[in-house]
Amino acid sequence: MGERTARRARGGGGAARRAERTAVRVEFSRYITRNIPDLEILNEEALQIIEANAETVLEEIGINFVENPAALALWREAGADIDGERVRIPRGLARKLCATAPSQFTQHARNPERNVEIGGRNLVLAPVYGPPFVRDSAGGRRYATIADFRNFVKLGQMSKWLHHSGGTVCEPTDVAVNKRHLDMLHAHMTLSDKPYMGSVTEPSRAADSVEMSKILFGDQFVDEHAVMTSLININSPLTFDSTMMGALEIYARAGQACIISPFIVGGAMAPVSVAGTLTQVLAEVLAGVAYSQLIRPGAPVIFGAFVTSIDMNSGAPTFGTPEAAQITLGAGQLARRLGLPYRSAGGFTGSKLPDAQAAYESANTLNTGLLSGVNFMLHACGWLEGGLVASYEKFVMDADQLGYLHKLAAGIDMSENGQAMDALREIGPGGHFLGCEHTQANYKEAFWRTNLLDYRPFETWDEQGAPDTMALAEKRVAKLLADYQPPALDPAIAEALDAYVAQKKAAVPDAFL
Amino acid sequence: MGERTARRARGGGGAARRAERTAVRVEFSRYITRNIPDLEILNEEALQIIEANAETVLEEIGINFVENPAALALWREAGADIDGERVRIPRGLARKLCATAPSQFTQHARNPERNVEIGGRNLVLAPVYGPPFVRDSAGGRRYATIADFRNFVKLGQMSKWLHHSGGTVCEPTDVAVNKRHLDMLHAHMTLSDKPYMGSVTEPSRAADSVEMSKILFGDQFVDEHAVMTSLININSPLTFDSTMMGALEIYARAGQACIISPFIVGGAMAPVSVAGTLTQVLAEVLAGVAYSQLIRPGAPVIFGAFVTSIDMNSGAPTFGTPEAAQITLGAGQLARRLGLPYRSAGGFTGSKLPDAQAAYESANTLNTGLLSGVNFMLHACGWLEGGLVASYEKFVMDADQLGYLHKLAAGIDMSENGQAMDALREIGPGGHFLGCEHTQANYKEAFWRTNLLDYRPFETWDEQGAPDTMALAEKRVAKLLADYQPPALDPAIAEALDAYVAQKKAAVPDAFL
Repeated sequence: MGERTARRARGGGGAARRAERTAVRVEFSRYITRNIPDLEILNEEALQIIEANAETVLEEIGINFVENPAALALWREAGADIDGERVRIPRGLARKLCATAPSQFTQHARNPERNVEIGGRNLVLAPVYGPPFVRDSAGGRRYATIADFRNFVKLGQMSKWLHHSGGTVCEPTDVAVNKRHLDMLHAHMTLSDKPYMGSVTEPSRAADSVEMSKILFGDQFVDEHAVMTSLININSPLTFDSTMMGALEIYARAGQACIISPFIVGGAMAPVSVAGTLTQVLAEVLAGVAYSQLIRPGAPVIFGAFVTSIDMNSGAPTFGTPEAAQITLGAGQLARRLGLPYRSAGGFTGSKLPDAQAAYESANTLNTGLLSGVNFMLHACGWLEGGLVASYEKFVMDADQLGYLHKLAAGIDMSENGQAMDALREIGPGGHFLGCEHTQANYKEAFWRTNLLDYRPFETWDEQGAPDTMALAEKRVAKLLADYQPPALDPAIAEALDAYVAQKKAAVPDAFL
Repeated sequence: MGERTARRARGGGGAARRAERTAVRVEFSRYITRNIPDLEILNEEALQIIEANAETVLEEIGINFVENPAALALWREAGADIDGERVRIPRGLARKLCATAPSQFTQHARNPERNVEIGGRNLVLAPVYGPPFVRDSAGGRRYATIADFRNFVKLGQMSKWLHHSGGTVCEPTDVAVNKRHLDMLHAHMTLSDKPYMGSVTEPSRAADSVEMSKILFGDQFVDEHAVMTSLININSPLTFDSTMMGALEIYARAGQACIISPFIVGGAMAPVSVAGTLTQVLAEVLAGVAYSQLIRPGAPVIFGAFVTSIDMNSGAPTFGTPEAAQITLGAGQLARRLGLPYRSAGGFTGSKLPDAQAAYESANTLNTGLLSGVNFMLHACGWLEGGLVASYEKFVMDADQLGYLHKLAAGIDMSENGQAMDALREIGPGGHFLGCEHTQANYKEAFWRTNLLDYRPFETWDEQGAPDTMALAEKRVAKLLADYQPPALDPAIAEALDAYVAQKKAAVPDAFL
């Protein structure tokens, strides 16, 4: 179906040429394939200690699978020790079960050019997930609505360095809780042609996500390909609740990808130390991934780690801290040793505004994420106030910085042209390189260019209103939303999606809890 | 003399105890010793190509030593080919001469607890250097004065994570050009007890720096120890002017340390490619360090790299860019292979305000600097507007982030306590770690704490005026300056420094060019 759409857009004749002429060019960059090394913060001995400790946690302490007798039965059959809801997993069993999970998989988009490879040396960037509030310069902080949701999907579609449309880019609080997943999926499917995430808040909503994907891609395509990557949070410490596991079960059976992600505020849901937290993260992911493979061997899954630490004065979660960076780096090594794709990091901040604090903390996390070998980075742009707020301005600020990650990750060009010996010979001592042949041939692609930040001289900038980054971002948000055009979609598919949503909404009364 | 000062502060009797009771406690952290790996962005083959190309540059193209017949004579004697002012250095000669430079040295402070080790796994952080303007929230952007200069030295003395008082923290434009070095050195020597940099703007000013240091430390101590690290910029491409070389000659002969630093805006003073720029940086540093060893074998020197790139639209220099990060990382590898301490990075930004742009760009550079194996980081705090402005608020913002670098660099505690298996056993599935014994025993030191950033819940923060980072920083600047107390100094030394400055100032008329 993705191919059908693409074929349609490429189709011959006058209509296609007219469409091409009038279309706003949407810039798009492929997912990152790193050509730089990872930062290996733990040595071999430390890695072995943490791996051994995680096995001890699984064997001695175990994991609770809450209100999930079917899961307990599967675990018993696999050889685990079951005591009430507690599952104790013999040393090595979880790791062995994880071996059937693929080390890399393709998540398909309806536009095949937007397909992403998750795993290996790749990095896929996805926007903020989950905030109940939004903030922008004009309207301040307020509850998010479906109109905001659609705006964020449009911003994502228009953001060159963002590879993924994400999932709950904000909570559309004006739509009933039991129906908002329909509107969210509909927005991702119709307003964007990038890959997206499915609903996980109830197993039936995961099933709706699969059904709607089948309308978009065709039944057989969905049966045979991953078209969603969804977020399964573990209720840390060491607890797997039936809602999240129910969603995981549906996605795994359907061959759809899941991120299995401990959700940890260090000091509260994990020990107050980095090595202890890494041990717990590994134990939880081993159990979750193993369980996904019990459901369906070969189901695509991602080793997740959402880890922050608590401010011991106020109890508030903190972001962009050195301990979180160490955990992100260490967890990346553990994921690679397991042979699993890795999800972590993002443009995290605890700041209430898209100010300098927000930028320091986000840049710390983005840099760490790149060097940790993250394969799927959720929250890469738009995150504010510890994830309570999706910020319009911060979305475009972070999205611009994602270009920095692309260029840095590309590594250093060591070709003859990159070595530039001719330029050095041509110019010599005291000369100037701007006019030389090598510069003329390379300057367009030589340096990464921001679409947001200000490089003007002071005087020009001052005369033109002395805007700060917030003011520049406000203008860019308005421009991107004004320029936005929906990607072409087969009208029959659009109608079928509309009908599915309408029918599902009509079938049950609204629920707001 | 440093020891004498320290002895005095520790001296017995009622006066000392009274002084201790009334003193504001100035927090101080030792320089960083990394316990994490460097990021090796270039592989062995790429490093060998760049090293071979740099030798080709030295041999075929050569370096100009401008208006410096003594330097030409030294080079001729060493075996170089001299053609006018052009010095062509046979393959391998410069590298061989570099071998006498120490791989690590101690820069002494008048308070021995503030001594810094430059080289090895260490990272020493120093403030912004060179801006003619200052900016603060109340006064906006204006020419810097000696009053500003003293304020920045005081802020440096009060900044826990800053190890070095720096040099020209801003240009005191209200003091005559030919006398301001005296006031600057006097401020560093009397208002701070951290190590400092000497003047390089004329050989005679370098000589004054040595003389004043002898007053502070004693003649013999200065003869036998490095008490200054001064900044010798190379006039890239491939040009060494007689002013900077004159200062280098004086410092090297006096056994005082110098940073030998290409000053490169990529695309203008170097080729528009990363590998080409690295080649030029290496060639220039090889020549400069070799020359320092011709002056005095064993003179302490640092491999410097100040590299940014040009915005090809406006011609403005840019900061915090991916190409600059790649160069910083690559140059670190080249410095380590030469066995030299490495200077690079800083809290760089092109922004005109301490806003989100400033913070993204600075965080990118600070993170890169840490992972590049930088040993001496100039401009670590306070840099704004491409180095034209020293910002009060950004000084304390960056200085806070330097704490992040300290904690990240400390690595991961793999002790039994760090592994926290007892905590994991105690809490188990579904529990909460805040109250457990391990948390109680470790929470005070477990997580890095900001002295600036805001973690309050939205409601509290909003009620208390909803301050952005700029507003928080403004308050912190005021508090640090109000709390500042000068470190104890032998009155006889203070008088001698006053007298030296007065005598030197009286000896010649003011010059403002």
